[in-house]
Formats: sequence, structure tokens, C-alpha cells
Amino acid sequence: MSKTLTITETAAWLSTRDNFLIITHRRPDGDTLGCAGALAQSLREQGKTACVLFNPEATPRYVQFVEDYWAPEGFKPEHSITIDTATEDQFPVNGDEYIGAVTLCIDHHPSNTLYAEYSYLDSSAASCGEIIYEIAIAMAGCISEKTAGSLYAALSTDTGCFAFANTTANTLRVAALLIEAGAPHRELNKQLFRTRTIGRIKIEGMIFSSLEFYFDGAVAIASISRSMIDAAGADEDDLDDIASIPGSVVNVKAGITIRELTAENDCKVSVRTGASVNADMVCAHFGGGGHPMAAGFSLNKTIAEIKEELLTVLPDHI
Amino acid sequence: MSKTLTITETAAWLSTRDNFLIITHRRPDGDTLGCAGALAQSLREQGKTACVLFNPEATPRYVQFVEDYWAPEGFKPEHSITIDTATEDQFPVNGDEYIGAVTLCIDHHPSNTLYAEYSYLDSSAASCGEIIYEIAIAMAGCISEKTAGSLYAALSTDTGCFAFANTTANTLRVAALLIEAGAPHRELNKQLFRTRTIGRIKIEGMIFSSLEFYFDGAVAIASISRSMIDAAGADEDDLDDIASIPGSVVNVKAGITIRELTAENDCKVSVRTGASVNADMVCAHFGGGGHPMAAGFSLNKTIAEIKEELLTVLPDHI
Repeated sequence: MSKTLTITETAAWLSTRDNFLIITHRRPDGDTLGCAGALAQSLREQGKTACVLFNPEATPRYVQFVEDYWAPEGFKPEHSITIDTATEDQFPVNGDEYIGAVTLCIDHHPSNTLYAEYSYLDSSAASCGEIIYEIAIAMAGCISEKTAGSLYAALSTDTGCFAFANTTANTLRVAALLIEAGAPHRELNKQLFRTRTIGRIKIEGMIFSSLEFYFDGAVAIASISRSMIDAAGADEDDLDDIASIPGSVVNVKAGITIRELTAENDCKVSVRTGASVNADMVCAHFGGGGHPMAAGFSLNKTIAEIKEELLTVLPDHI
Repeated sequence: MSKTLTITETAAWLSTRDNFLIITHRRPDGDTLGCAGALAQSLREQGKTACVLFNPEATPRYVQFVEDYWAPEGFKPEHSITIDTATEDQFPVNGDEYIGAVTLCIDHHPSNTLYAEYSYLDSSAASCGEIIYEIAIAMAGCISEKTAGSLYAALSTDTGCFAFANTTANTLRVAALLIEAGAPHRELNKQLFRTRTIGRIKIEGMIFSSLEFYFDGAVAIASISRSMIDAAGADEDDLDDIASIPGSVVNVKAGITIRELTAENDCKVSVRTGASVNADMVCAHFGGGGHPMAAGFSLNKTIAEIKEELLTVLPDHI
């Protein structure tokens, strides 16, 4: 069983140890990467050796926050720390050797399986960024501009620039403190939330014009084929958070995105719902799952086949 | 010359008077309407009589924040207060009788012409919502849930849900305090920032596909004709903040939106720029103006004529 720590204990735990490897999760987002960079930076400012395990799935959008800290070949850490990683299944593709061997886990998922020797968990935090901020302040009393910028990226990306339902008063208050500590929020907001690539614009336009509505407009389904992605010239970053589009249409209670991955019959399905539909239960029919308002599954069927099955299953849930 | 007040003096000014009419600006946005509702509510909670002058241009999106306070027929105020209104030109279409007769102006525009007898001006505030928050707290020590909700709408809409460059640490801190005072930020964020109508989706798709790029992609121009708006079935609310779209494309330094209003040769032009191009100076060529990064003008010419003139003027500014 994992020993759970408080913020002060976590700061003391870090302050009295050295040689850390920080591990981000599979399909890494701004929260795990921003936090990893920020924690490595904070620890280095305390004179520690701290690196981040290279994550081959990190996209250009977020790699800026961690690339200065990638662990060199042959780095032998004394302690490994995961951030924003609820289960050992979510370790990065090159992280198998750390299964059963993580010393500290810092996370905000209620589903955390307590796989680490020590854990700091706060499921009330909208992002791990808020937690790392508290830890960094508890360690040093202040944070540097560089740490503040990475944490601002973590907080803002995990809350959709403070628009998602997980945002709390504390998220906004920490964001204010990060700006005062020098986080370049104007540049980051412009880059992360107010810049569209041509690929993004094209794929959004295609999704909008391909949206299909069912059950009196309660369900919206977007189908994204590989040929659409190719025609738009869209890369993985361009597809970031694309699953939120169908659910953003007025009166839609369940927004569903079906996306072809490697082949026509290899699809990933994302379900986003309002409070009246349980996305987790819809996805359970297909062997998937997630949260009540955001869940998903993968299936070796075509878009048309998946759509047909969904339309059979959905009436029980709406 | 207008007498300028501090927050405490403004609160004392309001506390020692009664019978207020609050006036919003032409083409009212969430800041002017949210603040008007919030100030009326705060004053009523202090036992005052306070109403908002009916603004015939208020759209369904924001009318919820003021409709409880519309002045009844024949209401005779002792004091008239404008909010978020830099000049008397911007008084609402039914506000002519207040020209030269406003007793208090509360504003954050640096271009305020000091037309009122008393003024509270703070051009460092991202929104007037932040100012009204300080005034309400100075009057009563706390704010009600209803006031908090209207002010949250004011702050969040004027800052694009905290993503625009005008957002400051203070904006976020006040937003945190509003959430703690009971502002329903989840519902408001969903409604104001995360819901698209079919009309909005269609008009966005049309804008994306009609974007034209000039000067190696440094300038993006969107042309929105009346027939496009009709074909999309888009209303005024659907066109909210549409001017930010061209400037959101990667590497664009000036994003320009030309929109037909009542006729083919009655156009409104919005210019949004990064720090390297002065939007105010571009618009000054056409008799318009605004802020360095957001300005506009109106012209009785067609979209094609305006585009041609802009392309002549722009090289001097890029």
C-alpha cells in the first residue's frame, strides 16, 4: 500500500533526496509535460539532479516545456516520480521498467491505483499544475519565471483556458500567482488557445460540415476518416481536443467523434456528454470507459459499422 | 472638466445618493450589460432605486444579465451612470437625451473623453467588471450570488474567457473571488464559450473557407457578405467575436474582417493585430480607430473596394 503524503511532506520528501527521474504519461498532454518540466526546473534550482524520461509521443505543441530536461542516455536515477498518471497502464511506451518501481506519484485522478511507494493525491485539483505549484512553493518559498510558465501551460491546457467545468477558484488564483511570478501568459494563450494552423482550420471545417444529428438533435456524430485528415494536412497537434466539437453544438447531449486510426477498420471513438447522459456507460457497451462526461473506446470496425451500433445502443442512455 | 474619483470615493458617491439610471453602450457586449446588471443589483441591495436604460440592441446572449433591471416607462432618475462607454458617440440609440448630462462614468478605455461630471477610470482593468467588483465590495463589504454571476460574465466575455492579451493577474484573482461568492461559472462558461449554434458553425465554416492571405501570410482577410449570413441563418449573437478568427491563423500578424451591414456598400471593418502591427494606425487611414491591437472603422464602400484600399495601405504598417 502506498504511503500518502501532504504537500509539506511531499516537499520535505523531495528536499531530503536527490537524483530524480520524472515520468509523464502515455499520449502526454500539457498538464503532464508542463508539470514534469516545472518540477525538474524547481528541483534543479534546489541544487538537485532531476531529469524527465524522454516521451516519444510528446508533440511539438507541448515539447517546449520538457525538452530542456530529457534524461541523458544511461541516467541512473535513485527515485522515479510519475505525474498525472492514474495507473501503471498509462506509463509511456518506453516506461515498462518502472512498473512496480515508482517511488513517488503526484496525481489528481480519483481513479489513481496507489501503485507508487509514496503518493500525493488531490482529486479536487483541476490540474496537476496546481499541485506542483504548492509543492514548489513549499520547497523554495517562491518559483522562477521558467517554472511559472510551464505550470501556467499545465493549468490552462487541462482546463481549456479556464473554461472547462473542472476549473475552480483555486485554479484561477494559482494562475494569477503564476502570472505575477512571470509566466508569459499572453504568449502562451496566443500559442495554445488562439492560434489555428491551416490544418486545424481545414479539419474543423470538415468536421462542422460532416456533423450528423440524431434523436431530435440530442446526439451529434462527427466522422473523421484518414482521407479527411490527409486532405486537411492535419497532424496530431491539429487534432488536439477535436472530440469536444460535436458536443459544443447547442442542445446536443452527447457529442461523439469516430476517428479512423491506422486503417479503415481501426477506429477510436470519443464520447462527450452533458450531465444527463453517462458517457462511461455508453462506452462500456463497447469495452471502453472513462469519466461520466468524457469516455472512449477503440474498435476494429468501420466508421459506418460503429455508427450503426452506436445508434442501436444510444436510445437506452438518452 | 470631469472630477475623477478613486474606488472609495466612487463607492461613497453612490452610497450618499439615490435614484440611478445606468446606461450601457451601443452594440452592447457582455461587459457593459453584465456590469449594468451587477451595479443595479448591488445598489438595490443597499436599498437604492437603480434601473438600467433599456438597450434595444441587447442580444439574447447577454440580455439575461440586465432584463430584471430595465427602467420602467417614465422613470425619472436623479443620476445617470454610464459604464464601459468611452465617448458620448457610443451612447445607445435611445440615449441622446443623456448627452452632456451624465453624472458618473465608470470606464476602462484609455480614450475616455471625460464627458461625465464625475469619472472613475482605470485603463489597466481588462474589463469594467473588475472595477464594479471593487466598487461593490467598497460599498457593502461583500457581493451577492446574483451580482457575482453578472460580473463573472462581464470579466470572462471581455477577456475571451481569460485568453485575450488584456487578461491580468487581477482579472483572474477577481474571477476566483466571484466563483467563491457563488458565480455559476460552469454554466456560464458552457453557455458563453462552449456552445455553438448551427448558425455559428455554418458561418465559421464559411469564414474559414473564404479566408484570403496576403504578404506571405502576414495578413488574413475574411469577407462576410449579407448573403453568407443569410445562408448560414446566423444572427447577431452568432457573429459575436467573429473578428478574432482571421488573426487566429498561425503566423498572421493582422487579421481583418470586412462585414456587410445593411447594404452592399455599408461595411464594418475589424482589424486585430499582434504586437508588430498597430491596428489603431491602420484604421486611422479610414477615419476609424481603437486600441493598438484591436481597432475598426465603417465605410460606405463594397467589400472589394475596401479590400483594395486596405492592400494599398497595409504595406506601410507591416
